[in-house]
Amino acid sequence: MSSTETTSDDDEQHSTTNDDAAPFEAIIEARVLNDFLDPIDAIVEEFRLNLLSDGVSAEVVDPGNIAMARVHLDSDAFESFEVASEGGQLGVPLVKLRELLDFADPGDLVSLSLDQETRKLAVEFDTIDANVALIDTDSLRREPDIPELELPVKVALEGSQYRRGVMLADTVSDYVRFIGDTEAREWRMDADGDTDSRSERFSREDLIEGQVPDDHESLFSTDYLKDLTKPIPDDSEVTLRHATERPVKFDYEIGDGVSVKNMLAPRIEAR
Amino acid sequence: MSSTETTSDDDEQHSTTNDDAAPFEAIIEARVLNDFLDPIDAIVEEFRLNLLSDGVSAEVVDPGNIAMARVHLDSDAFESFEVASEGGQLGVPLVKLRELLDFADPGDLVSLSLDQETRKLAVEFDTIDANVALIDTDSLRREPDIPELELPVKVALEGSQYRRGVMLADTVSDYVRFIGDTEAREWRMDADGDTDSRSERFSREDLIEGQVPDDHESLFSTDYLKDLTKPIPDDSEVTLRHATERPVKFDYEIGDGVSVKNMLAPRIEAR
Amino acid sequence: MSSTETTSDDDEQHSTTNDDAAPFEAIIEARVLNDFLDPIDAIVEEFRLNLLSDGVSAEVVDPGNIAMARVHLDSDAFESFEVASEGGQLGVPLVKLRELLDFADPGDLVSLSLDQETRKLAVEFDTIDANVALIDTDSLRREPDIPELELPVKVALEGSQYRRGVMLADTVSDYVRFIGDTEAREWRMDADGDTDSRSERFSREDLIEGQVPDDHESLFSTDYLKDLTKPIPDDSEVTLRHATERPVKFDYEIGDGVSVKNMLAPRIEAR
Repeated sequence: MSSTETTSDDDEQHSTTNDDAAPFEAIIEARVLNDFLDPIDAIVEEFRLNLLSDGVSAEVVDPGNIAMARVHLDSDAFESFEVASEGGQLGVPLVKLRELLDFADPGDLVSLSLDQETRKLAVEFDTIDANVALIDTDSLRREPDIPELELPVKVALEGSQYRRGVMLADTVSDYVRFIGDTEAREWRMDADGDTDSRSERFSREDLIEGQVPDDHESLFSTDYLKDLTKPIPDDSEVTLRHATERPVKFDYEIGDGVSVKNMLAPRIEAR
Repeated sequence: MSSTETTSDDDEQHSTTNDDAAPFEAIIEARVLNDFLDPIDAIVEEFRLNLLSDGVSAEVVDPGNIAMARVHLDSDAFESFEVASEGGQLGVPLVKLRELLDFADPGDLVSLSLDQETRKLAVEFDTIDANVALIDTDSLRREPDIPELELPVKVALEGSQYRRGVMLADTVSDYVRFIGDTEAREWRMDADGDTDSRSERFSREDLIEGQVPDDHESLFSTDYLKDLTKPIPDDSEVTLRHATERPVKFDYEIGDGVSVKNMLAPRIEAR
Repeated sequence: MSSTETTSDDDEQHSTTNDDAAPFEAIIEARVLNDFLDPIDAIVEEFRLNLLSDGVSAEVVDPGNIAMARVHLDSDAFESFEVASEGGQLGVPLVKLRELLDFADPGDLVSLSLDQETRKLAVEFDTIDANVALIDTDSLRREPDIPELELPVKVALEGSQYRRGVMLADTVSDYVRFIGDTEAREWRMDADGDTDSRSERFSREDLIEGQVPDDHESLFSTDYLKDLTKPIPDDSEVTLRHATERPVKFDYEIGDGVSVKNMLAPRIEAR
């Protein structure tokens, strides 16, 4: 994977300028950088990092086109942050970068600096000095198009409870059903095995916030949800929206500065 | 394993009434329920739960007929406990039930309730609501007959030390010898490997209580003992009785309300 | 592996007297005994223990003749220490001894006593009583000859940083280069992967102590160094000496009484 320069027949949706025009210098706490990388790691092994005037972002989708994330890290979360011109994109080998950051203490200040000529990212912290070769962005999957959707059911729940509902469902089934039930005045996550059933139920009072205008239910893969819910902090508030046989969208924040928007396609049931 | 109703040609030793006549409703701390299930888990993967007026109990034996346990959970250890008529029996899929209880915090109150029609056990705690399909008791191994035995050597030792003696023996041999030695005025657990020997020795003072009327020794499988001693609390007092070439019996308690009686057949030595 | 007596055609470098003349009795804290065994364990699975008037020692080398250690445990680190005549040697089955010591608490006093007739080492602590059959020293690898070497580069660094430099290098390469760089006024550990590089750099100020008279670099296997650096305490001071294309030597201490001298052969680079 040798680094090449972005050619003029750039076919990306994201408006990119030539990579050469995007020098990047930043200093950030290792803990915050890892917070940003966790939700990306749940979906892909390498990604396009967008350099923006207000921070950095990534929009990723899995090979099956089932799970997506848009993750944004605010420039205020950096100790120092400099992008020469908005719109640059770096191809980041996520697995290698994580392996390197494993050597940093959470509070270590990590210095990131792009060498435009060699297309390497210089990464420094404590007494460590490393060069990470970037990936040609042309060789990376395109950024997904996350659609606007009408999703009438909207609930807010705790990160730990959301993840627990997924893990519980997974013990009896490969699928979990998200159900807005107006009669029972509750929102719940149901799973039906061959003989057993499991349910995580949220009555109005259990939910941080809930809005179930009419009955809706939709089925999702527990495997995908296990990966997507892993990075959610236990005490964070997850805002979740769904409808009948449509994707689910859920948003949450990590620390000060990382915001995550996930989307997962439903499993359409055979009838 | 579909649930069927107990038929009239019930061949069990335990006096059972028709299952339909045994509704069961109870509330118990997750921690206490797990304390009850641990020593059963050491021997079987599914078992008959006896519903009694003074609590619940299980009598189990492994497929090889080597290791047995009688475990009793007192009704006082429940927050609430209701059995319509003594003598009912539920076929419990232990592995599935444990997997479900893994989602409970130790202090969660677990509500158990039998649906006689569907033969499912409704299990509820926190925001979780589950149904566990019971197993037809006819398809389960019969309860063992734990015999009365003359076992003159009787010692009491700490749970942690008993387990340590077993683990130590296991490093050099598949067998451990329980020895009451009147001359050395001690009780000990010996293991002899090809070249090495290991011994956990209890002089009169080391034992909580000891009674070695004359010399006795008996050989037991470390594999079985590793499983049986795992659930014993570190600081509990284990009362152990054995004789020459007879089974060993040992009793202990877990928390307030769980009492365990184990029996293990000896390995008869070739001469 | 039956124990035999050392014969008169003893071909060892170490001056040994007849084993029968070397009774050995000692008491030592489990923690200290393990400190002594750790650096030996990094290289071999069985070794010759030298009984000296001022303590015990071991000189070991791996089968490939690449990594060596001389480890000494001072008699003052024992609670009691008695060697009848200096120069005896015991063949210690290290794996078995470690497995036994796993049952000891760090503060347990371990009593060691040689039975000359059976060639077994009696090991006792708490209520445990064990016999470990010794290995015929004639069947063990000879002690290595650790040569005197002119090694002009000499630096002292923290144990945790030394180990981290090795682990970091290992993420991109099988080799790490030790570099004394007079121009950059630093000593560093470099690793070059196919596309990435990793470096742990020590400027004059980062080093506990440094002496780089002129430029020197030498290449070493990360696999060996991972094993050798594992027993080094985080906060210990490691004194390291190397030159161009010569072995590296490094010394450190563990607790009060264990001193370790390691040597590792370089990998000579193809040109």
